[in-house]
Amino acid sequence: MANMQLEATINVLQSIVGPERVSAAQADRVQHARDQSSHAGRLPDIVAWPQTTAEVSAILRHANEQRLPVTAWGAGTSLEGNPIPLFGGIVLNFQRMNKIVQVHEADFQVTAQPGVLYKDMNQQLTRYGLFFAPDPGANASMGGMIANNAAGIRTVKYGATRDNVLALQVVLANGDVLRTGSRSVKQSAGYDLTHLFVGSEGTLGIVSEATLKLAPLPEHFSAVTAAFATVNQAAEVVFNIIGAGLGPTALELIGASSVEMLNAEEGTELVVAPNLFMEFSGASEASLGEELKLVEEICRAYHCQSFQAGVGREARANLWRARHRMFEVMVRTFPGYDYLLTDVAVPISQYPALVAAANEIMTELDVNGTMVGHAGDGNLHTAIFFPPDDNRGRENAQRVNDHLVETALSLGGTSTGEHGVGLGKQKYMLKEHGEVGLNLMRQLKATLDPNNILNPGKVLAYDTNWVIIPQ
Amino acid sequence: MANMQLEATINVLQSIVGPERVSAAQADRVQHARDQSSHAGRLPDIVAWPQTTAEVSAILRHANEQRLPVTAWGAGTSLEGNPIPLFGGIVLNFQRMNKIVQVHEADFQVTAQPGVLYKDMNQQLTRYGLFFAPDPGANASMGGMIANNAAGIRTVKYGATRDNVLALQVVLANGDVLRTGSRSVKQSAGYDLTHLFVGSEGTLGIVSEATLKLAPLPEHFSAVTAAFATVNQAAEVVFNIIGAGLGPTALELIGASSVEMLNAEEGTELVVAPNLFMEFSGASEASLGEELKLVEEICRAYHCQSFQAGVGREARANLWRARHRMFEVMVRTFPGYDYLLTDVAVPISQYPALVAAANEIMTELDVNGTMVGHAGDGNLHTAIFFPPDDNRGRENAQRVNDHLVETALSLGGTSTGEHGVGLGKQKYMLKEHGEVGLNLMRQLKATLDPNNILNPGKVLAYDTNWVIIPQ
Repeated sequence: MANMQLEATINVLQSIVGPERVSAAQADRVQHARDQSSHAGRLPDIVAWPQTTAEVSAILRHANEQRLPVTAWGAGTSLEGNPIPLFGGIVLNFQRMNKIVQVHEADFQVTAQPGVLYKDMNQQLTRYGLFFAPDPGANASMGGMIANNAAGIRTVKYGATRDNVLALQVVLANGDVLRTGSRSVKQSAGYDLTHLFVGSEGTLGIVSEATLKLAPLPEHFSAVTAAFATVNQAAEVVFNIIGAGLGPTALELIGASSVEMLNAEEGTELVVAPNLFMEFSGASEASLGEELKLVEEICRAYHCQSFQAGVGREARANLWRARHRMFEVMVRTFPGYDYLLTDVAVPISQYPALVAAANEIMTELDVNGTMVGHAGDGNLHTAIFFPPDDNRGRENAQRVNDHLVETALSLGGTSTGEHGVGLGKQKYMLKEHGEVGLNLMRQLKATLDPNNILNPGKVLAYDTNWVIIPQ
Repeated sequence: MANMQLEATINVLQSIVGPERVSAAQADRVQHARDQSSHAGRLPDIVAWPQTTAEVSAILRHANEQRLPVTAWGAGTSLEGNPIPLFGGIVLNFQRMNKIVQVHEADFQVTAQPGVLYKDMNQQLTRYGLFFAPDPGANASMGGMIANNAAGIRTVKYGATRDNVLALQVVLANGDVLRTGSRSVKQSAGYDLTHLFVGSEGTLGIVSEATLKLAPLPEHFSAVTAAFATVNQAAEVVFNIIGAGLGPTALELIGASSVEMLNAEEGTELVVAPNLFMEFSGASEASLGEELKLVEEICRAYHCQSFQAGVGREARANLWRARHRMFEVMVRTFPGYDYLLTDVAVPISQYPALVAAANEIMTELDVNGTMVGHAGDGNLHTAIFFPPDDNRGRENAQRVNDHLVETALSLGGTSTGEHGVGLGKQKYMLKEHGEVGLNLMRQLKATLDPNNILNPGKVLAYDTNWVIIPQ
C-alpha cells in the first residue's frame, strides 16, 4: 500500500474499531504473515482487531470501495498457507470476537464468535456435558475451522466441521450481513448458503458468528491399540469395524516409523509396526464391554501382533496424549527442519493402496518422512522433513506431495481432506475439479466478491490469468 | 409453446433421444402436470425420456439457446408442487435413467442414476448388507430426493439426503456437464458445489448421477412404543434419549388423533395419547438389551402410560408398517378430500411449543387435521383435510400453515424441514432468509441459470419482479 493510502486506511479503520485496535507496527505485521505451514510469509499492511459484526461490516464496506485486500485471521494454526495475506492489505484478527454467544443446551448447539478457540470452547462446554466434536488437534479458532472445513480424529464418528454447522452470520464483501440456515437440524428452504461458506477459506465472505451442532460427552470410553504385520491387515480391520456398525469415535493409523518415534520420545512401548489407535464410547460400561469383544475378535481374525484394550477415561487420555504429541515429536526428531505435510484422502477401500504408494515414494526418494492417518476416513498425512537450505530435499518433498495427490485422485479421492487448498493445493484444483468445476467456482467467487478483495490469491488462483500469485 | 416452435422442438428432441422417447400426447402431458400435493397442475408441452447424460446435456443446450423451460421429473411423489412445470416447456422424465451404476461395497457407497427409485435401490442393496438411510416414506426417485433434500424417519440417526451425498454429476443450464465432490468422505478442496445443488429443486442444474453414502444394515433391532399423558412429557423423553447418547435410529411422535385413526383403521391397540415410536439398533443383542433398559428407565421417569418393547425384525416391521400407512390411513379417513401438509421444523427444545401451537390453531379453526412428527429432528407435519370445493376449509388450512411457519421461524426453525420450497413455501422465503439471503440466492440462480430455463417459478420467485407465478 502506498504511504498516503496506508495512512488514510489506518484513519478509517481507527474510526471504526478505535485507535488501539489498529496497528501497522512491524511486530504485529510479522505475527500475521504466515501460518504453521512452511509456505513463505507475506506481511499485511495493517492488522485490525474488530469486536463486533458491525465493525467487520464497516471495514469490508470501506475495503470494497477502495479495493483493499482483506484476510481473516483466527489462530494461525492452519497448515496450507490459508491465511497468508498474499497481497498485503488488511488482516482482521478475530481474537477479540472470541465469545460463546449462547449455549443452546437442550438442543446440543452453541452459537459462537469466530475467534473462540477450539479447546477454550470445549472447556466451557464441559459443564453442559457437551462438546464440539471435530477435533483438529491444534487449538484452532472456530472461524478458521469453518473456513478450512477442518476435521480430525473424531470425524469418523461425528463428521467434519462442515457436517456440524447449522447457521452462519457472514459479512459479505460489500459489507452486507448475511444470515444463513437456522437452528433446525433439518432444513430444505432454498439454496444451501451455509455450506457454500464452509471451506471457502474466507474468499467468499467472512464468518462473524456460527451456530454449531454439539455432541453429548460420552460417559463411557474404551481405548484400544492393536499392531499388525502389514498396513493391509490394519486396513481390513478398519473396514470390518465400520461394517459391523461398531461406530468407533476414533480410528487412527500410526505408521511403523511414527510408532518408533513415539516409543523413543514419549516412552510408549508399542509394537513397532502399523498400529491402529481406536476409541469407542457407549451408553453403559456393559454395552461397551460387549462391543469390545467384537473389536478384539475382528483384530484377532486379522492376526494382530498385539491387542491392548483399556476401559475408562485414563486409558483414553493416555492414548490421545501420545497421538496428539505426534506432530511435536516429529518436529523434535528433526530440529530446525522445514516440513511439508500432505493431506490426501480416498475412499476407505483404497486406503491400503494409498498407504503403499506413500511408502513406496518415500522409500524411493529416501526422504525423512513419517506417516499418520485418520484411517476411518481414508485420510492420510505424511510429514516430510528437510533442512531449510536443502533444495533437493524440498523438491523431493514436493514430489511426494505431487505423487500422493495424483494417486489419491486416481483412486477417487481428493488432494485435501481437511487442511484446505490454501496455497499449496491450488495447482491440483484443475485436475481435481475439471474445467467446468473450476470455472463454476470462479463464477461463484466473482458473484460474491466481484472486486476480489477477500483473501485474494487463494483456492482458485493458481496458473490462471485470473490472479497471479506473486513470488 | 406456439405450434411452430413446438414442432421444431419435438424434432430436435427426437433427434437427440429417439422418436419413441418424446411425446406431446395429452395423456403423457397430464401425467406430468402435478405431484402428490394439492397444488394446481400445469401441463408441460413436451415430455422426453432421456437415457444418458449426453442426451440430457444436448437437450439443455438446445433449451438454453431457445429459452425453453426444462423441469426434471422423478417419481412425482413430492409434496410441495416442486416439479410442476409452471411455464410448460419440456419435462425430462428420468424413468429410463434408473440404474445403479456401481455399488462400492467396501466403501459403503453407491453411484446411481437419478431415476432409480428409493425402494428399488435399497432392495438391490440388501444383498450387500447396505442401505441408503434417508427414508422419505414414499417411493421417491433418488434425483427427487436430492433435489428436495428429502428426509424421513431415519434422519435422526443417519441425517437427511444432504448429509449423504458425496459427489454429483450435474448438467448445467448451458449443457455443460459438471462433476462435483469425490468419493472421499472428507473433502476440503475448494467450494462445496455438491451441496449447492442438493435441495436446489432442479433450479440450478439437473443431477444426472450421484454418489451416495450408504449405511450397513443393522443386524439387531428393537422397536419401542410408549404413550404419554402430554406431548411435553414425550418431548422431554426425546431430549433425554438423545442426551444419553442412545442414538435411536428412529424417534417419531404420533399425535393422539393419529393414534385413534391407526387403532380404528389398522387394528393397533395403542393407548390414545401422544405416542413415541422408537427404534434402536446395535452391534449385538446383548448391547441392545442394555440400551433398552436405559430407554425404559427414561420413559418411566416421565410417567409413560404404556411401554412396549420388542426385539427383532418382526417387532420392528410391525411398528413401521403402521407408521408408513399413516398417510394412507388419513386419506382413507377423509375420502375425496384435498389436503395441505405442513412441514415446519424447529430446534428440539422448541418442539413442545411447536406442537402446542399446532394443537391450538387446529382446535381454534376446527379443521379436520392430524399430526405426526419426526420428533428426534424437531420436524412436525400436520395434515389438514377439506372438501375440494370448501373454500373456507382451504383458507383455514392455509391459515394453519401460515401460523405454523410463523411459529417455527420465531422459534429458530424453518418453514420446511424436508419437503422443499416448491410452490407453497415461496411466500415465506423473504421472512426466513432476509433480503440479503434471498438476494444472494437470486444472484446464484442468475449465475447458474442466466436464462431462467431450469424449473422456472420455483423456490425464489414469489412476490418479486423476477418471475411472476401465473395463476
